[in-house]
Amino acid sequence: MSDQAPEHNDSTRLDRMQRALESGTLQQSRRMLNALHPGEIAHLLESLPLAQRDIAWRLVNEENGGEVLILVADEVRADLISKMDTEELLAATEGLDTDDLADLVQDLPRAITDEILDSLDHQRRERLEAVLSYPEDTAGGLMNPDAITVRPEVTLDVVMRYLRHLKDKIPPQTDILMVVNRDGKYLGVLPLTVLVTHGLDETVAEVMSLDVRGIPATWDDGKVANRFEQHDLISAPVVDEAGKLVGRITIDDVVDVIREEGEHQFMGQAGLSEDEDMFAPVMISTRRRALWLGINLITALLASWVIGQFEATIEKVVALAVLMPIVASMGGIAGSQTLTLTIRGIALGQLSAKNTRWLILKEMAVGGLNSLIWAGVMAVIAGFWFHDANIGLLIATAMCINLLLAALVGTVLPMALAKLGIDPALAGSVLLTTVTDIVGFFAFLGLATLFLI
Amino acid sequence: MSDQAPEHNDSTRLDRMQRALESGTLQQSRRMLNALHPGEIAHLLESLPLAQRDIAWRLVNEENGGEVLILVADEVRADLISKMDTEELLAATEGLDTDDLADLVQDLPRAITDEILDSLDHQRRERLEAVLSYPEDTAGGLMNPDAITVRPEVTLDVVMRYLRHLKDKIPPQTDILMVVNRDGKYLGVLPLTVLVTHGLDETVAEVMSLDVRGIPATWDDGKVANRFEQHDLISAPVVDEAGKLVGRITIDDVVDVIREEGEHQFMGQAGLSEDEDMFAPVMISTRRRALWLGINLITALLASWVIGQFEATIEKVVALAVLMPIVASMGGIAGSQTLTLTIRGIALGQLSAKNTRWLILKEMAVGGLNSLIWAGVMAVIAGFWFHDANIGLLIATAMCINLLLAALVGTVLPMALAKLGIDPALAGSVLLTTVTDIVGFFAFLGLATLFLI
Repeated sequence: MSDQAPEHNDSTRLDRMQRALESGTLQQSRRMLNALHPGEIAHLLESLPLAQRDIAWRLVNEENGGEVLILVADEVRADLISKMDTEELLAATEGLDTDDLADLVQDLPRAITDEILDSLDHQRRERLEAVLSYPEDTAGGLMNPDAITVRPEVTLDVVMRYLRHLKDKIPPQTDILMVVNRDGKYLGVLPLTVLVTHGLDETVAEVMSLDVRGIPATWDDGKVANRFEQHDLISAPVVDEAGKLVGRITIDDVVDVIREEGEHQFMGQAGLSEDEDMFAPVMISTRRRALWLGINLITALLASWVIGQFEATIEKVVALAVLMPIVASMGGIAGSQTLTLTIRGIALGQLSAKNTRWLILKEMAVGGLNSLIWAGVMAVIAGFWFHDANIGLLIATAMCINLLLAALVGTVLPMALAKLGIDPALAGSVLLTTVTDIVGFFAFLGLATLFLI
Repeated sequence: MSDQAPEHNDSTRLDRMQRALESGTLQQSRRMLNALHPGEIAHLLESLPLAQRDIAWRLVNEENGGEVLILVADEVRADLISKMDTEELLAATEGLDTDDLADLVQDLPRAITDEILDSLDHQRRERLEAVLSYPEDTAGGLMNPDAITVRPEVTLDVVMRYLRHLKDKIPPQTDILMVVNRDGKYLGVLPLTVLVTHGLDETVAEVMSLDVRGIPATWDDGKVANRFEQHDLISAPVVDEAGKLVGRITIDDVVDVIREEGEHQFMGQAGLSEDEDMFAPVMISTRRRALWLGINLITALLASWVIGQFEATIEKVVALAVLMPIVASMGGIAGSQTLTLTIRGIALGQLSAKNTRWLILKEMAVGGLNSLIWAGVMAVIAGFWFHDANIGLLIATAMCINLLLAALVGTVLPMALAKLGIDPALAGSVLLTTVTDIVGFFAFLGLATLFLI
């Protein structure tokens, strides 16, 4: 398979780089490193343990430095920045696109930011401040202010001459030119494919496309990503409240948003940030994880406290202690499935007031049916195991209660959290399992206390 | 905030659509629906409960049908297809891009596939078969065979005339033209931005870019996505083993891959597929979830069996039953963090033989430090709670054992699964919690049996 070709394989490249760094052949490492695309260098740096990462970062050529800084994960970036002096940071910011520069500036110490702002010419500084005036996770924060604009009344011939004049200054990922009127109001787009396939004497107004609507600068980035996906966009205009063009968003930044959204959901469930550096220093990782473990210890203690209320019951029927984790665990698993489905629905903007009711009913029906199946199975197993039909009946009842409740909480909880502005991807699973643990133990041991003894 | 503007808001649109469908004003619903972009229609259909989805799907215009089918999630697509007759399906496939047609054909019954193949002209059929000859999740399966190619020796003027001749037949998301020699071997790309900024008398060979390497058709789609991300590509050439151009991949398909990869990791943890239809029929959802709950019931029974071995011990010291879930739960939480980090590292291709060792050591150090912190806290709490320092010492020891083991298993397990070709995102968390439950209960109750009584 061509997967084996060394120049194509991330992990082979990584291995070779690590071997070169370990053997101390720095000249060779430098050559290997700088032959790569900045995105590949960023990927490599993220994959290197700290000591090797420091060495490799020193080997990256200055002209690649800024772009690599933009492309590494936030935590790795903070690590690299902390080791650079002001001069190196100033050099790294040169030649960056305005949106990238805005990203970087937000991570720098205030003193250095001021120096960078001072070093910019008037126009660039104004543009940078325009991007910085919007929160990072909005369309305005994502946008690059340097879009190529044309007027509707000019001919394609004029546009062509203008482009030839710009030449290498055409920003990357330019698939469309923005058509604006005299006041800068956004009117439509002129795709390059239209430009090259129409007569040079036609005017922009005659051939421009009105299909691409301006994205309000205040939209949050998830919504921007949905728009790009639903319309298969490569770049899109960003407009202010008055409909004036303020910049454009390109697909590469949207891909980052989508990647981060996915990682956020996945890693949030385990209390990790999507920016987590795999090779963060042990002390930093420990501190961060400690918090999550502490929160979970509190919920575990709550569950234990519930069990503690039934010590007398357990003392009489030890079988209860043996079986009780099953009730809690099955509720947690069933609830997680519902929770996961709901969190995705919220992220994709697929839940509204109206269809939510359907989802709750459906999930409760699924939970109810599944609780019947597995409660039945468990009743038989427990009955035979402990030679007591009552114990079978008991665990089955407790499981039904817990699974039904898990379905309800799995749908309602994340939606309530989202309404309250709390991130369901982060808080959802802890809260859910707290409920299913407590209810599971309480239902099982409580029923046992009432009916078994 | 402009978020409130009705035409911009997914959930407002959804609400209005549902109201229109419920009130039975089909004409209005049809107008609303067909004014949308196919991507938006797909999103809307995914968000509708089954009965309403059926009605809405009937209202979608024929010319949008095929593209909407491509854009909905796999499960929703299967649902829609199952309700269409052969004629409707044939109509839907008309006008689709070859890569989209290939996607769709793979989901259709054999008889209909044959009819579709028969209805195609020779060239289109050949292209479709080329795409179908590669697995769906490879570069070959993702590609569209209809790239625009030019020869290196022609002038830009000739290229321009060729494009004007193609006019509306230029495929969407064409940012580069592929340069191939007489034998169809891939040589490089001619970006449209270069085409419009250079003199018409220059030749393609003089201005073409060699930066974009051909992607082997056998690459898996995750690797293609990494390449697109690291190189900020909009489209890229796909080549066969001989270096011949066989098609091109566009960013919209790559965005789908990235979105699905993220959802797969997130939803896999809960035993769900990324294609899961939020409004799947209750019976289908129940059956699918039942399997996952059944697997988890087996692991829970295993843990219970371990507890059962220590019934005599628990009978003597009921405090053990109260505290034992804490040991298991903290191990599971700590292990999940390590597991999540490792699974992401594998997905991003950031783990190699060399840095894996570092990751294991780092995670064990983090797990060790955190187990000291929380085992200490728990020792004090348990000691006071049950007025017995030995119980405190016991739970602390068991927690240290379980958290250290969790860190080891959290790193080694997903890498072993990946080596064995088993998806760690799906199997990882069940296996991990099985280990941390069993070891947690065994260590705690076993130590108690040895030292406490």
